[in-house]
Amino acid sequence: MGYGIIEVNGQTVTMIVMEVLKLSGKKGNPERLQMIHQKVEELIKIYKPNEFAIEAPFFGKNVQSMLKLGRAQGVAIAAAMSAGLSVTEYSPKKVKQSITGNGNADKTQVWKMLKQLLVLKEQPHYFDATDALAVAVCHHFQMNSVIGNTVKGLKGWEDFIKKNPGRLVKK
Amino acid sequence: MGYGIIEVNGQTVTMIVMEVLKLSGKKGNPERLQMIHQKVEELIKIYKPNEFAIEAPFFGKNVQSMLKLGRAQGVAIAAAMSAGLSVTEYSPKKVKQSITGNGNADKTQVWKMLKQLLVLKEQPHYFDATDALAVAVCHHFQMNSVIGNTVKGLKGWEDFIKKNPGRLVKK
Repeated sequence: MGYGIIEVNGQTVTMIVMEVLKLSGKKGNPERLQMIHQKVEELIKIYKPNEFAIEAPFFGKNVQSMLKLGRAQGVAIAAAMSAGLSVTEYSPKKVKQSITGNGNADKTQVWKMLKQLLVLKEQPHYFDATDALAVAVCHHFQMNSVIGNTVKGLKGWEDFIKKNPGRLVKK
Repeated sequence: MGYGIIEVNGQTVTMIVMEVLKLSGKKGNPERLQMIHQKVEELIKIYKPNEFAIEAPFFGKNVQSMLKLGRAQGVAIAAAMSAGLSVTEYSPKKVKQSITGNGNADKTQVWKMLKQLLVLKEQPHYFDATDALAVAVCHHFQMNSVIGNTVKGLKGWEDFIKKNPGRLVKK
């Protein structure tokens, strides 16, 4: 499981962390899920994010691997929801398009663009981690474009609030 | 999502509840997941179960439906783990075999057997609910046979504790 955390200050986007959670040592499925759940809880406690986004792949090796991936995402989502975070999902195509302008870009192209956007010097060790960072940056772009009212189908703030009632701060 | 809760008192097994959570009114995936998470938390709070078991299907319509099912199971599993419950999974074949003696039994045969075992008079409204009840009864049988030392590969209590350290009450 890869994860990426970014900080947004006005126009400045900074990478806070980009890592993978290694699960190879854990044998049983429930133990793996527990590890993921605890890790996400821990990350939320440490970094106190305002948003949570996750990738929803449309293809997988087989139904079994997709069930496992879904469960892993489910325990991560549960940790986010328990912390009061809203959960947004993006298709891999949407993430790639958002970062590189090309929905069919490969992982190297996505990383190249991320390096430029976030002014990074390091080399990534795992593409699972860069994938996660890409989802975070995609979500940032998406939130900006939603607020900037450029998303297709939205007609002004009134419509945005109507379609996103949860984003309205009640007084 | 179907769920079933049973109570075991010595040799007596009683059905406490067998129900489905209707999700059709909820549109977005995250809202559905939140509903499932809250429902499972609520059920655990009300019925205070000692065990939690879930079905792990090996086939699905497509990878997308399996990802959704996996996520739904994931948030339910997270609720169970947060409550300190151990999580066990069974294949549908194992459940059917455990209840009817035939791993290829159909849902009607499983229900017929459950009715006998639990001395039920009611008619089920949803097979998702009877499926869940079947998992609960399967887990009960499985726990009994584990403790009864008939599971292949287990060599007495010492071996059981070694393989199930979480089931040992520490003093």
